[in-house]
Amino acid sequence: MIVKKYNEVERCVVTEEGAKNTSIRWLIGKDSPAPNFYLRQLELEPGGHTPYHSHPWEHEIFVLEGIGSLNTKSETNPLEKGMFALVMPGEEHQFENTSVTTFKFLCLIPIPKAKT
Amino acid sequence: MIVKKYNEVERCVVTEEGAKNTSIRWLIGKDSPAPNFYLRQLELEPGGHTPYHSHPWEHEIFVLEGIGSLNTKSETNPLEKGMFALVMPGEEHQFENTSVTTFKFLCLIPIPKAKT
Repeated sequence: MIVKKYNEVERCVVTEEGAKNTSIRWLIGKDSPAPNFYLRQLELEPGGHTPYHSHPWEHEIFVLEGIGSLNTKSETNPLEKGMFALVMPGEEHQFENTSVTTFKFLCLIPIPKAKT
Repeated sequence: MIVKKYNEVERCVVTEEGAKNTSIRWLIGKDSPAPNFYLRQLELEPGGHTPYHSHPWEHEIFVLEGIGSLNTKSETNPLEKGMFALVMPGEEHQFENTSVTTFKFLCLIPIPKAKT
């Protein structure tokens, strides 16, 4: 059993190409015994965004604070506290801070399974 | 892709034995195409608690609002906004509202896989 507060976990700047003013805390990550999925907290400062990309795994996200959007090629979906989203594997997407305060959300991903 | 607010999802009273003043919203549940895990929001009113039990799957939780605790046989772990926990498969546990306001947290579980 692990019980902690989010700010006990290191905040790391996301250096991936296409990311701006974005950091991440791996709340339940590789250093935990989590069997199936990881819990991360994303923090986008004003002007910040994640890369516009897709990948073969899903996101489940829940907004904690601030105002932003979940962008696709054809849509800009507004996001605010209490909203959640499921981004399916292969769907192109980007998260963006559209306000002047920090935009914080939880973002969960499955743990990659070893090929058998 | 699904984008919604938590209160667009029905709140259901938890009728399981040992639960009191507890309700749940299956934000991303069986009616979604989620491939690996479900996102639920638990709401415990004052005096509320979940059953004291264990099961063969993990919980990953994140506290949104209120004050409560994660109880085991030997420990009472205080919980407040911004705290998170990993309860491993088989670990006995109970969530309890220890305050006079609603205690809200996200609780994620893996999707049971069909036996092959």
